[in-house]
Amino acid sequence: MNPVSASFAEQRLVLEQWVRFALDRLTNDDLALEIIPGRNHGVWILGHLIASDDDLSLFLGKGPLLFPEYQALFAQGCPCRAAGEYPSPDLLREQWDAVCAKNTRIHAALTDDELDLPHDMVEGNPADDYFGTKARVIMHWHMHQAYEAGQLALLAAKVGKSVL
Amino acid sequence: MNPVSASFAEQRLVLEQWVRFALDRLTNDDLALEIIPGRNHGVWILGHLIASDDDLSLFLGKGPLLFPEYQALFAQGCPCRAAGEYPSPDLLREQWDAVCAKNTRIHAALTDDELDLPHDMVEGNPADDYFGTKARVIMHWHMHQAYEAGQLALLAAKVGKSVL
Repeated sequence: MNPVSASFAEQRLVLEQWVRFALDRLTNDDLALEIIPGRNHGVWILGHLIASDDDLSLFLGKGPLLFPEYQALFAQGCPCRAAGEYPSPDLLREQWDAVCAKNTRIHAALTDDELDLPHDMVEGNPADDYFGTKARVIMHWHMHQAYEAGQLALLAAKVGKSVL
Repeated sequence: MNPVSASFAEQRLVLEQWVRFALDRLTNDDLALEIIPGRNHGVWILGHLIASDDDLSLFLGKGPLLFPEYQALFAQGCPCRAAGEYPSPDLLREQWDAVCAKNTRIHAALTDDELDLPHDMVEGNPADDYFGTKARVIMHWHMHQAYEAGQLALLAAKVGKSVL
């Protein structure tokens, strides 16, 4: 019995629904649009979702990145270049599916015992680490992905494809 | 022992951090700004966060709304009027604190046994209900609030107060 892990696994699927609710309404042309001029566009947000979903496995000690080159392109704080300078939206959509499948597998294999352990990217004393445990990493990652879904939804609203 | 409830209670505090990260950077003047012209502004998002946080207690069977009048003002799909037509940002900030305190109390008192029960706003057959159980209501509400936090963060980015 791993009730907390099972709850996180179910929540992960709920989270995916929230992302796909916005993403599936946006065409590739929509994704190239900026939400706030000069700050970001849908292609960057989708890439950022992939990069941040991908590195969860490093924090949980569950294997390598699928797309290591995206950490330098799409990690938080990376400059946002013109949409056409990034991989195509079709490729990014496939890669989003791939990181979702990877995280579905990882969540399904979690045990409650490991959730209270320090995460695998702790440097120094775990008590001083911002996230601390693997459980708290999962909570923050789920919140972060929903936060990005909200930004994609604003883009969908901008092109008249979603209520807010 | 209520490990899943305890996990949700901790996640609720994580979620509050995500909202406050953006909200605390925004002045009252910032909140009056539109993110996407003609669609929404920070005052509406803050009111929507209050209304949606408040009605969690109805779904969990944990007591009445604190601000019932906000359901018609700030529920999903309500038209967004000019920011000056809504309660003041200072009042909304206080009311956000009040719904957070209410939900901290509600989360602290949850038991795992009740999480798998149908939520209290089910009409008809629970198996046909979109959310179904109280656990799934909590997951969706947490995702939703983080989704709105992402939109507030875009406003913070628009006024140069946040990275994305």
